[in-house]
Amino acid sequence: MTTSQMQREVHEIPEAVARLLDRGGPAIRAAARAAQDRNPAFIATIARGSSDHACTYLKYAAELTLGLPVASLGPSVASVYGAQLRLAPALCLAVSQSGKSPDIVELTRSAGAGGALTVAVTNDPASPLAAAASAVLDIHAGPELSVAATKTFVTSAVAGLALVAEWAGDARLLSAISHLPDRLDQAARADWSPLADVMCSVGSLYTIGRGPSFAISGEAALKFKETCQIHAESYSSAEVLHGPVSIVDADFPVLAFAAADAAEGAVVEIAETMAGKGARVFVTSDRARGATRLPAVRTDHPLTDPLALIVSFYAMVEAVARARGIDPDTPRHLKKVTETT
Amino acid sequence: MTTSQMQREVHEIPEAVARLLDRGGPAIRAAARAAQDRNPAFIATIARGSSDHACTYLKYAAELTLGLPVASLGPSVASVYGAQLRLAPALCLAVSQSGKSPDIVELTRSAGAGGALTVAVTNDPASPLAAAASAVLDIHAGPELSVAATKTFVTSAVAGLALVAEWAGDARLLSAISHLPDRLDQAARADWSPLADVMCSVGSLYTIGRGPSFAISGEAALKFKETCQIHAESYSSAEVLHGPVSIVDADFPVLAFAAADAAEGAVVEIAETMAGKGARVFVTSDRARGATRLPAVRTDHPLTDPLALIVSFYAMVEAVARARGIDPDTPRHLKKVTETT
Repeated sequence: MTTSQMQREVHEIPEAVARLLDRGGPAIRAAARAAQDRNPAFIATIARGSSDHACTYLKYAAELTLGLPVASLGPSVASVYGAQLRLAPALCLAVSQSGKSPDIVELTRSAGAGGALTVAVTNDPASPLAAAASAVLDIHAGPELSVAATKTFVTSAVAGLALVAEWAGDARLLSAISHLPDRLDQAARADWSPLADVMCSVGSLYTIGRGPSFAISGEAALKFKETCQIHAESYSSAEVLHGPVSIVDADFPVLAFAAADAAEGAVVEIAETMAGKGARVFVTSDRARGATRLPAVRTDHPLTDPLALIVSFYAMVEAVARARGIDPDTPRHLKKVTETT
Repeated sequence: MTTSQMQREVHEIPEAVARLLDRGGPAIRAAARAAQDRNPAFIATIARGSSDHACTYLKYAAELTLGLPVASLGPSVASVYGAQLRLAPALCLAVSQSGKSPDIVELTRSAGAGGALTVAVTNDPASPLAAAASAVLDIHAGPELSVAATKTFVTSAVAGLALVAEWAGDARLLSAISHLPDRLDQAARADWSPLADVMCSVGSLYTIGRGPSFAISGEAALKFKETCQIHAESYSSAEVLHGPVSIVDADFPVLAFAAADAAEGAVVEIAETMAGKGARVFVTSDRARGATRLPAVRTDHPLTDPLALIVSFYAMVEAVARARGIDPDTPRHLKKVTETT
């Protein structure tokens, strides 16, 4: 197998983001005005899987840009335990590519009925989730055929980020978002082969990050598992030395995601500490000395940097899957739409 | 080595909980009255490591009992990125055994200065964290000498749970809490040796749970890493089939934490599904057929069941560490108090 749907879809990301920013702009601006009018006390997110990683990314974006705390809701609180959450003062952001998982739809509907402003981020504006929400952001990703989400992850993150930027009236962030298609195109062609070569024969590793890049680290760990059957686990670089470091011995691989932001120095420092313990550490920063540096396409704002990192990662992980003899489009045990009740 | 500090401290848990409920009662009731008076719009938690797992447990407890959404705050938002979060409508719960980590202390202080009601849960009422908070719950755990937190995890969880129960005026939950010392004593003596035998030669596994038992699953995974150098990762049973299941092959171990609550059937179903894929699955429920059943001490309320499960787990994991030739009191690379800035 020399190519895959996943590979094609990764390379479609820049075009999908451009389409989202073009066609999706009016809906994003309307939702931002509704959010400004409502002026919620906090934001609550509702999602699973890769979409939940997009929500973690948006948690940092909203907290850093708007100063609004973000709670991640477990849909089971309503669907399994039957609790009625007091969400009237909240803006609820539900993210689902398919818009079909019953527990996500039900919690969104129930939040809206309880008085929350609900915003659905989905690839299907005709989905039950879209019908349940008061505002809908179509991510305009086009069909995604690979089981592993890539372009829908990035377009969901960009849709939510654009909402936050419009809401905050942050001109610098909006400008950086408008340049993303070009930057992500560069990112899809970054050479991460030194990491790919090591990953071909690895069983276990840590991915780390901090702040917005920590969300990307979580998404990367899931993709290593899904597409490569590698046990990757994500940690905040602030947490990894608290206990998780205990399993790190000689040649244990670590992939550190550093954006060009206020945490870059701290992430590099942890990466160097782990390299000093004998771990095989890769880091997306040219400040590293003991760890191997991976080329990082920098964008025009610290908050958009992690999106370029995940695109470079996706291109690399797809190649690792194929090198390991796995079809990344049809991971073992998985199907595209998982419906959880 | 036939015994360890960790083993002694696990067996001290029932007595520590009894002491907390006895001596800590007045402070818990005073904090509950302050919470009722303030009637916050949401709860925000501030913690790292095992204390953050206690906060995840308390998130479910508060959401299910009070209907109040809970946001977990990353201290880096303030300490690294310098963002000022709008926390005035919140009750902020900061959990730290030592009460010393500068970023936890600073975020708590800043939340209080911004108008939030702040509650510190700590083993040191003379700590900087206690000084920074408007209310202090001393967990009365006594000295904890093992690097791996056990009795401070359980007493922190019980202190927070008692606060929630008093706040909600939930007599049934308060009664179950008062019976915990006896139940936890039974739990510390539960026979989980079938699992321990398998874990002696394992490199990687999943722990799973749902709702409040998902928090316990996270704590268990951390302890497997810290004390046994086993790469355990925790997943919600609702998430594990979304992608993580891809690395599960024949004999991959899975430990499923089921409480006697509304999620028990769903957790058992996922456990059985994974057993059907060839995984070696253990589950704390007598409803299981294909998976191996572990004895679970049931308490008097679904919310307190997970506390009995983690005590049985602690006793088992300590024995596994020693069987693997590791001193559980001094894990590789770790020290007791990690100070993050």
